[in-house]
Amino acid sequence: MTLDFASIRYGGDYNPEHWPVEKIDEDMELMRRAGVNLVSVGIFGWATAEPTQGAFDFSFYRMVLDRLHANGIGVCMATMTASPPPWLTHRHPEMLPQRVDGVTLSPGARQQYCPSSPVFRQAVGSFVTALAAELGDHPAIRLWHIHNEYGCHIKGCWCDVSAEAFRSWLHHRYGSIEELNRAWTTTFWSQGYSEFAEILPPRVAPTFPNNAQQLDFARFTSDELQDLMRVEVDILRRDTPTVPLTTNFAAVMPPLDLWKWTKDLDVVSFDNYPDPSDPESFRIAAMDYDIVRSFLPEQPWLLMEQAPSAVNWRVRNAPKPAGKMRASSWQAVAHGSDSVLFFQWRASPGGAEKFHSAMVGHTGPDSRVFREITALGNELAAHPEPTGLRTHSDTALLLDWDSWWAGELDSHPTADLKLRDQFLDWHSAISAAAVQTDAVHPAGDLSPYRLIIAPSLYLITQESADNLAGWVNDGGVLVLNYFSGVADERDRIHPGGAPGPLRELVGATVQEWWPLQQGEQLRVSLDGLSGTNSNANNNGADGTRTVGADVFTEDLVLHGAEVVGSYADGGLAGAPAVLRNKVGKGTVYYVSARLDRAGTTAVLQAAGADAGVQPLLPALPDGVEAVRRGDGDAALLFVINHTDESVTVPLPSAMTDLLADNASATDSVQLAGYGVAMLR
Amino acid sequence: MTLDFASIRYGGDYNPEHWPVEKIDEDMELMRRAGVNLVSVGIFGWATAEPTQGAFDFSFYRMVLDRLHANGIGVCMATMTASPPPWLTHRHPEMLPQRVDGVTLSPGARQQYCPSSPVFRQAVGSFVTALAAELGDHPAIRLWHIHNEYGCHIKGCWCDVSAEAFRSWLHHRYGSIEELNRAWTTTFWSQGYSEFAEILPPRVAPTFPNNAQQLDFARFTSDELQDLMRVEVDILRRDTPTVPLTTNFAAVMPPLDLWKWTKDLDVVSFDNYPDPSDPESFRIAAMDYDIVRSFLPEQPWLLMEQAPSAVNWRVRNAPKPAGKMRASSWQAVAHGSDSVLFFQWRASPGGAEKFHSAMVGHTGPDSRVFREITALGNELAAHPEPTGLRTHSDTALLLDWDSWWAGELDSHPTADLKLRDQFLDWHSAISAAAVQTDAVHPAGDLSPYRLIIAPSLYLITQESADNLAGWVNDGGVLVLNYFSGVADERDRIHPGGAPGPLRELVGATVQEWWPLQQGEQLRVSLDGLSGTNSNANNNGADGTRTVGADVFTEDLVLHGAEVVGSYADGGLAGAPAVLRNKVGKGTVYYVSARLDRAGTTAVLQAAGADAGVQPLLPALPDGVEAVRRGDGDAALLFVINHTDESVTVPLPSAMTDLLADNASATDSVQLAGYGVAMLR
Amino acid sequence: MTLDFASIRYGGDYNPEHWPVEKIDEDMELMRRAGVNLVSVGIFGWATAEPTQGAFDFSFYRMVLDRLHANGIGVCMATMTASPPPWLTHRHPEMLPQRVDGVTLSPGARQQYCPSSPVFRQAVGSFVTALAAELGDHPAIRLWHIHNEYGCHIKGCWCDVSAEAFRSWLHHRYGSIEELNRAWTTTFWSQGYSEFAEILPPRVAPTFPNNAQQLDFARFTSDELQDLMRVEVDILRRDTPTVPLTTNFAAVMPPLDLWKWTKDLDVVSFDNYPDPSDPESFRIAAMDYDIVRSFLPEQPWLLMEQAPSAVNWRVRNAPKPAGKMRASSWQAVAHGSDSVLFFQWRASPGGAEKFHSAMVGHTGPDSRVFREITALGNELAAHPEPTGLRTHSDTALLLDWDSWWAGELDSHPTADLKLRDQFLDWHSAISAAAVQTDAVHPAGDLSPYRLIIAPSLYLITQESADNLAGWVNDGGVLVLNYFSGVADERDRIHPGGAPGPLRELVGATVQEWWPLQQGEQLRVSLDGLSGTNSNANNNGADGTRTVGADVFTEDLVLHGAEVVGSYADGGLAGAPAVLRNKVGKGTVYYVSARLDRAGTTAVLQAAGADAGVQPLLPALPDGVEAVRRGDGDAALLFVINHTDESVTVPLPSAMTDLLADNASATDSVQLAGYGVAMLR
Repeated sequence: MTLDFASIRYGGDYNPEHWPVEKIDEDMELMRRAGVNLVSVGIFGWATAEPTQGAFDFSFYRMVLDRLHANGIGVCMATMTASPPPWLTHRHPEMLPQRVDGVTLSPGARQQYCPSSPVFRQAVGSFVTALAAELGDHPAIRLWHIHNEYGCHIKGCWCDVSAEAFRSWLHHRYGSIEELNRAWTTTFWSQGYSEFAEILPPRVAPTFPNNAQQLDFARFTSDELQDLMRVEVDILRRDTPTVPLTTNFAAVMPPLDLWKWTKDLDVVSFDNYPDPSDPESFRIAAMDYDIVRSFLPEQPWLLMEQAPSAVNWRVRNAPKPAGKMRASSWQAVAHGSDSVLFFQWRASPGGAEKFHSAMVGHTGPDSRVFREITALGNELAAHPEPTGLRTHSDTALLLDWDSWWAGELDSHPTADLKLRDQFLDWHSAISAAAVQTDAVHPAGDLSPYRLIIAPSLYLITQESADNLAGWVNDGGVLVLNYFSGVADERDRIHPGGAPGPLRELVGATVQEWWPLQQGEQLRVSLDGLSGTNSNANNNGADGTRTVGADVFTEDLVLHGAEVVGSYADGGLAGAPAVLRNKVGKGTVYYVSARLDRAGTTAVLQAAGADAGVQPLLPALPDGVEAVRRGDGDAALLFVINHTDESVTVPLPSAMTDLLADNASATDSVQLAGYGVAMLR
Repeated sequence: MTLDFASIRYGGDYNPEHWPVEKIDEDMELMRRAGVNLVSVGIFGWATAEPTQGAFDFSFYRMVLDRLHANGIGVCMATMTASPPPWLTHRHPEMLPQRVDGVTLSPGARQQYCPSSPVFRQAVGSFVTALAAELGDHPAIRLWHIHNEYGCHIKGCWCDVSAEAFRSWLHHRYGSIEELNRAWTTTFWSQGYSEFAEILPPRVAPTFPNNAQQLDFARFTSDELQDLMRVEVDILRRDTPTVPLTTNFAAVMPPLDLWKWTKDLDVVSFDNYPDPSDPESFRIAAMDYDIVRSFLPEQPWLLMEQAPSAVNWRVRNAPKPAGKMRASSWQAVAHGSDSVLFFQWRASPGGAEKFHSAMVGHTGPDSRVFREITALGNELAAHPEPTGLRTHSDTALLLDWDSWWAGELDSHPTADLKLRDQFLDWHSAISAAAVQTDAVHPAGDLSPYRLIIAPSLYLITQESADNLAGWVNDGGVLVLNYFSGVADERDRIHPGGAPGPLRELVGATVQEWWPLQQGEQLRVSLDGLSGTNSNANNNGADGTRTVGADVFTEDLVLHGAEVVGSYADGGLAGAPAVLRNKVGKGTVYYVSARLDRAGTTAVLQAAGADAGVQPLLPALPDGVEAVRRGDGDAALLFVINHTDESVTVPLPSAMTDLLADNASATDSVQLAGYGVAMLR
Repeated sequence: MTLDFASIRYGGDYNPEHWPVEKIDEDMELMRRAGVNLVSVGIFGWATAEPTQGAFDFSFYRMVLDRLHANGIGVCMATMTASPPPWLTHRHPEMLPQRVDGVTLSPGARQQYCPSSPVFRQAVGSFVTALAAELGDHPAIRLWHIHNEYGCHIKGCWCDVSAEAFRSWLHHRYGSIEELNRAWTTTFWSQGYSEFAEILPPRVAPTFPNNAQQLDFARFTSDELQDLMRVEVDILRRDTPTVPLTTNFAAVMPPLDLWKWTKDLDVVSFDNYPDPSDPESFRIAAMDYDIVRSFLPEQPWLLMEQAPSAVNWRVRNAPKPAGKMRASSWQAVAHGSDSVLFFQWRASPGGAEKFHSAMVGHTGPDSRVFREITALGNELAAHPEPTGLRTHSDTALLLDWDSWWAGELDSHPTADLKLRDQFLDWHSAISAAAVQTDAVHPAGDLSPYRLIIAPSLYLITQESADNLAGWVNDGGVLVLNYFSGVADERDRIHPGGAPGPLRELVGATVQEWWPLQQGEQLRVSLDGLSGTNSNANNNGADGTRTVGADVFTEDLVLHGAEVVGSYADGGLAGAPAVLRNKVGKGTVYYVSARLDRAGTTAVLQAAGADAGVQPLLPALPDGVEAVRRGDGDAALLFVINHTDESVTVPLPSAMTDLLADNASATDSVQLAGYGVAMLR
């Protein structure tokens, strides 16, 4: 099923439950004024629609849908299951989740459920069945919004119900206790199990719990939450087969393996809350959007939530200054979203998020924020060009949840390696170089790509390694960085040492990891790195280029690789730091240290040159982003100024800014602070 | 009932239980030498007086009272209930308190009780009844010392017993579940309750618990602790109707709404432990003393505990250097205390507070501390002048526990706003300006005041807003600061935006809060602020005065107010920062940013000038405090040097220092380090 | 029983359970190549050898022992009880340990037992009986390795089973509840017990639990863990009377009173993991080795575990650069170890410690580490000279677990005083002065020593005070530092003030403790300190020597002592800081402040001069250590360079480096980075 929108959808979460019913008249008028055409209804409606067990009453929501429909506003209809009503946990306290230390999480907030709870799943099924029957055929509904932000708060449950489910999951995975013992290396620390009944979740223990047990518990948690979603998916597919399904993901975050999750959905939805006080937060958004777009690449995705201005849940919640909300909204569209939706339409008068900004704030429509909301809504309606366009790249970042989970377990060489940090290191360099990028799974189809970059691929299967090797042999350029190829799918060390099944590709073996201490920095000389025009320092009379490194280094033993960078100081001074290895028709770069931006960029440019990757623009001022949406002739080039100062950006050829008042082709584009150009 | 002391009472907690009975002879001799005339007896005497259930034996305490009485020393008789004996919790573990995360707090320290426990309340009642019957008519007793520091450790209890009591409290407050649902905005996050039985305390939840539930739980906790005190109050009022009642408050702290608590008492008692290593801690004491004095303004209060030198419960416990204890003691008297009492008479040989300093330390009377103790006791006896004097001010700070509780809940624009910090900002400026101040509740009688300052009045009822408006219209000068008038008594946002029912008074509306990040600072220009002679920087050729701001700023929309200060830089550069609004015969200042000391002082001086408030002294050196005790002709002016360096302080007219050896009237007073003058 | 090794034993933990059995052939070959002659087998073998209850099967271990024996490799045979198998905790969850906050620690890691659990003790006894019967007479076995690192993770258990055991322990200690009430000063805070049944472990309470209860719980914990070991000791003494017993201590750490523990053993074993990223960590090792050697001084001890390179359990785990492992290994031998053993032989393919370095790493024998391992093994085999030599010193540090436990309880003058820090202050100064030192218990035989230094002897019994006094009167030189002589064995303050029963020795009393704030520093003038040639600053025209102080100072009242150092600034400026007191034929120094290295060294040199203590070498470069092993003519002088730079060290007379290729006597020794000389 595909969505087929006439223009970028505009709107947000609409919760009229919070207000007297009379307020709806004003809402309709203001929505029309603001150009709203899609709202999410009923996200936390369960207790309203089933105030006591089985006493379903959807009349309020039917009335809301009728009103919206009459005003031409489509509905992303929530299944309302994100927060069970008090009567349910009161009758069934055994469905409450437990923390790793055994503390039961109480009702009073939201998401108070054990994902594996049969009681909860039964109540969800019963509710969604009734909901689909009552409202499923309402003409206002455009798609189902299943639940809300799975895994946002409940990133695992360690209760006895979960323990039983974990045992079943393990039994299904391993078949026999002998196989589990082998997979978990239970000979270590006398952990050999004699039967599945002895197994528990990795609760608080005297010291580090078994790592394979932790890894499997992460997989189990993702699977159980997905199974919980499938309770709803199955009902909706059966009862409302023509309505597309989505669920909004709170983040690209560890608890949910989104490669697996998105297979159950028709559309990917994403909530994004970059911190306005962080001038680099637009880079995080860019990275997440590129990842999110890649899950279902033949479908636009939906920006389901963003904040009109400040949020309420950080320690200090800065507002978005004038213009920033517009720039961030176009950024999502540029990266493939067919919607600009907000949490939420009208600011709540009470409750935990009453200080979250809204399209209509507490002071009403006569406000800076609502004026910007209205202007953007009308602008989006006037510019349907990007709608529906899909984007493909010849560069990709490798992303694998198994490796993410395993790579961040305890008792590693250093606790400083976080995959998102490494993703951001590489994606920021890619983005600053104006290169368009996707994300891809290491066992996925790599053939569309010419350049692939793999932040720590700690865990890799032989199958994925073979997939990468075949692609490189066929001409691909692969950049691997440190702490890769360490473990297999059971989190056991690959025989012979890292990078394990990638050793031949790399042409080297890691003899020892040399993590650096906090604040420790050293220098890497990139003498052998050709094809670059980097901003690394040329600080030697002989033109030696050196860059900085911190966090992690490695002691390498070479068997075939060429040295293109060496440690200039520290305990590994003189030893190889960055390698290049020609394999078949392709090339592999190996980066054994966490390089600074200059170093990362230098490696990227060398590899990009080898792969023939072309940047979108010849040069980008700092804080300005270039993004392509659509392929070939249909492509639109967005240039977005994420700073509050004016900039001029040279273009590769004369182009026209479709958002400008009097659009005509020019060789460069002028952008005011937070300005956006949509060029063709 | 009033206390009617001949001079300032001097003494402290007297715990002869810790020592062999023979030590009492030496105690009596040393007390006489030190001028001791009031001691608290039996604070932790329960296990001694009821060693097993019902086996009351007060003979030890009768003997102690006899000895004290024979030596002319009065007794503040403890009701001994602050720490239940082991036999009680052993028999009734269900009376132990539970933390928010479900952890039960164990015996072995003190205060191990659930405030709502019927078992505990019954045991308290039984004990106090026996105590009153046995010792209530002893002639040594001057007043009852109920319990000890309620809420010092038990700031709430989340156990099932408390849950049941919370439900009863809510039922009484709201009458119906529908009304509770409205008050708590339970449509948010699907929290609608179908019956009271479903409600729990706000225990650890997956994320932020319902804010109104948290606010009501704070009110409930204060009320339950007060009800626990009333078990004793009722018995003592009935059985010993002529003995005045007090309980010692550990601090002006969130758990206890002292406006309500002090209505049950005849005298307010206060324990104060400023950190000797903090040179500004005297300002905290000054603020707390002014607040404490205001609860029962027609009665002197009692400084029930302070440390002779170091305490034992900080991470690092500095002693008080020579002279500091005397200065701190006179500070309490200056602020209205009719006593200078210590914890404790003789240092314990064992137990958790054996390293707390005492009037008689471990090395005995031949010590620096005991020599200072003796000198002060004799000085106080020689100077009865302040005894019994009551003080009234024409300036007041607004203080309301409802607003304090609600204003510091989670998921706010910033977690940096703490009411005590704001109180200290304002009180320090007031104190440094040598202005005398009280505290008053926003719904209280404001008519005595000309100038009222309100640190964040986050929560305000319509009734209080009307009270303030009436007072301003009658000529009052009101200073409101940022994050005021936000929510009503249910912690729901006032319609139309902050400052809600104060909008007309202020002449402006807060369009958005702009909290600053940690360490972020900006400048505010106070060009429009007349009538001041501040120490703000005159750093412009045109005489522009700018001051600093941090933590919090606001984006204001004006409707009538005059701009007297503007943001000079930051995201709100050029926007109004400080407002003045003429209302009726009065004036309202609104301060939208956390100003630095210079800025706070500048606003204070302008408002003070408008109100006609006169400082006690024309100028005060830094670290020197001026305090008036008594009104009109009876008034004494105290000048206290809280630094270790000599200072000279000019006086408004020739005055005489009653504490000086050869007192004669002079135009200025010389004070050595930690010196004190009592002037008339 | 004594060990009588022909040369330093070399090897490590050998865990072939982790690998396919075929790997053993390669292991044997590599062990021979590396000179391995002693390995520990079966440390975590319980689940392998008793896979279900009572189903003992030691065939795997018999095979391993056969193979080792056939290759001439001795075995330190583990009793395998360090981690109970899953079937045991599954059947008996009541044996799981509980934290102080009531959280139960789960299986999945190791050491998941309550030390007092009868169920666990029974299972241990049953297993060890079977093990001794099956393998106890195997000819490969050199000694029993009981359990593993007692107290490493379980530093106490607060469960109900422990509570009952604690009550029994207390009943045995005190006889009556009245005596316990006196010992615990339960009159404080109404804690008087009416029967033992009321007593609980010091679980989380509203505030500081009773300090004597905490102290007794520390003693109880050490005793219960030791009783748990004795279950095994008793069986092994009975069933294998000719096999020596050891257990490996994880550290010189608070939970285990090693003076008591080592009385049950034939040999002391120690695991040592200095942090390679800390250039001062060799000093910690030197200190610990000197302490460990002193427990059973007539027996060499065994270095049972160290890391070949990096560990896995720090936040950041640095490897050991080339040469450092060899230097550290010889350091242990120099300090009295007859072994150099590692964790572990071969790096694990899985489990929590797979990233711990091993003698054979994941990349196999062709690696830097294995080459260094092999070189060291052969060097040790070629140099049997130190084997079996015992060392005696004329200087000692006083160490007492009772004082350690009590001295670090809560609610003290400062939380900054940690006994290991103070030990390190003094031992580092001693070591840098090239003085040889032991550790001794304050109630032990002091007669061998001329100089004794006591880091905070917070708790001291009259018996120990008399022991010290007698020794000083006979000519001993005693250095006491701050916060000494404070409390007795019940943690009650000694009457009359600190240093209590040491007051006459010191000639002064501590009137008040003056702890300093974080970062606070002041100066101490050591004018009166003769006999020194310190590196204190001579910064006065009059030759005044001043040194720095922080953390702690004291206000002293003298009664006989001579002032040899005074506070130069701060609140105690001018007051005495360092005292000297002649007592009988001896001398007592008292240091009331935490002096910096220069100050500590100055006091040490003055006291050492009084005692006639001779350094091993006239001067030592920074980072170089001199250690004597053996007494008299048999003595070997080790000089170890712990830095990565070359140094030249002058010798007191011409000596020969037995480790040098062409050894001949020289007046000085040249050491490359991490170089070692063994001189005679």
